Amino acid sequence: MGAKLVAATHNPGKVPEIAALLDGRFEIVTAGQLGLPEPDETESTFVGNALLKARHAADLSGLPALADDSGLSVTALDGAPGIFSARWAGPGKDFALAMKKVEERLEETASDDRTAWFTSALAVAWPNGPAVVVEGRVDGTLVFPGRGTRGFGYDPIFVPEGHALTFGEMEPAAKDAMSHRARAFAKLKAALFD
Amino acid sequence: MGAKLVAATHNPGKVPEIAALLDGRFEIVTAGQLGLPEPDETESTFVGNALLKARHAADLSGLPALADDSGLSVTALDGAPGIFSARWAGPGKDFALAMKKVEERLEETASDDRTAWFTSALAVAWPNGPAVVVEGRVDGTLVFPGRGTRGFGYDPIFVPEGHALTFGEMEPAAKDAMSHRARAFAKLKAALFD
Repeated sequence: MGAKLVAATHNPGKVPEIAALLDGRFEIVTAGQLGLPEPDETESTFVGNALLKARHAADLSGLPALADDSGLSVTALDGAPGIFSARWAGPGKDFALAMKKVEERLEETASDDRTAWFTSALAVAWPNGPAVVVEGRVDGTLVFPGRGTRGFGYDPIFVPEGHALTFGEMEPAAKDAMSHRARAFAKLKAALFD
Repeated sequence: MGAKLVAATHNPGKVPEIAALLDGRFEIVTAGQLGLPEPDETESTFVGNALLKARHAADLSGLPALADDSGLSVTALDGAPGIFSARWAGPGKDFALAMKKVEERLEETASDDRTAWFTSALAVAWPNGPAVVVEGRVDGTLVFPGRGTRGFGYDPIFVPEGHALTFGEMEPAAKDAMSHRARAFAKLKAALFD
């Protein structure tokens, strides 16, 4: 087991995934376990928010810290919901509500452009040291109503380019091989370890 | 001369300094020379804005890009002017006006705390690749009226910790040895080259 890395999340469920995605090179502890408060996400970009959260956790814990920020951007909605993807699901994290909102907003635009993309930004910051920031993206098309119950968030309405199934229908392994998160982690590993 | 690096600035005067601070390892071209538009600085942190500008220049130019964001933060003004340091000088970049504003705001607080710090954030972003972000800081005390005509911006009212002269009075070499910019570049070189 490697050096300790703080995952700036309060969701312990994410730890095994992060540990695996970083080839088991770090011993992951969460900001929640260390009792670190979550900073307000004041930035207007995924990378800005990921950097803010990583920097905050690193400076408070004195350990290197990893943070992510991700979301769905819809072309015909000028990139919305974007960094507000989680907030569109409301306090109850009701993504059926959020997907409904995307559908309604699209209808309001009267555009038939259903293209969209997922972005995952990852940042690792060292206390009083540099930070490395990467971004992964996967393009696709939205379908309504959503299909499938796998994945989470907006997955049921998102068909990645070159595929017929939505992320909500896909086998997790299939999704993980091409997702924005996987691409971001691949870039992060290249930046950290190569 | 090394690989090309875009300096996300429209001030050609900065090129020699940047080239020197990076040990001549890069051939510097400015965003202005490439005709790249300046993005709106929408982030609320120095590192967020530096990252935004570097990412923007890298993605538009297809070359690695360096950007900086720096400013003065006054303790008794809750860190103001901070990322608005340049904007307090108005469109005419009148820093006498900006220094006056700092003095007046301080008097309004009736606090006798004159401590402040300069921050310099630097970001290097690779097109479709990672970004490295660092921050340098120097602490000090404000004096009014300002003293000295060297340096620029708020230098005449800033006495770095452990010194008697303001940045405005100091020999450029003396200032460069300890400034927030020098510290940021030292961290950047460590992150890039070590």
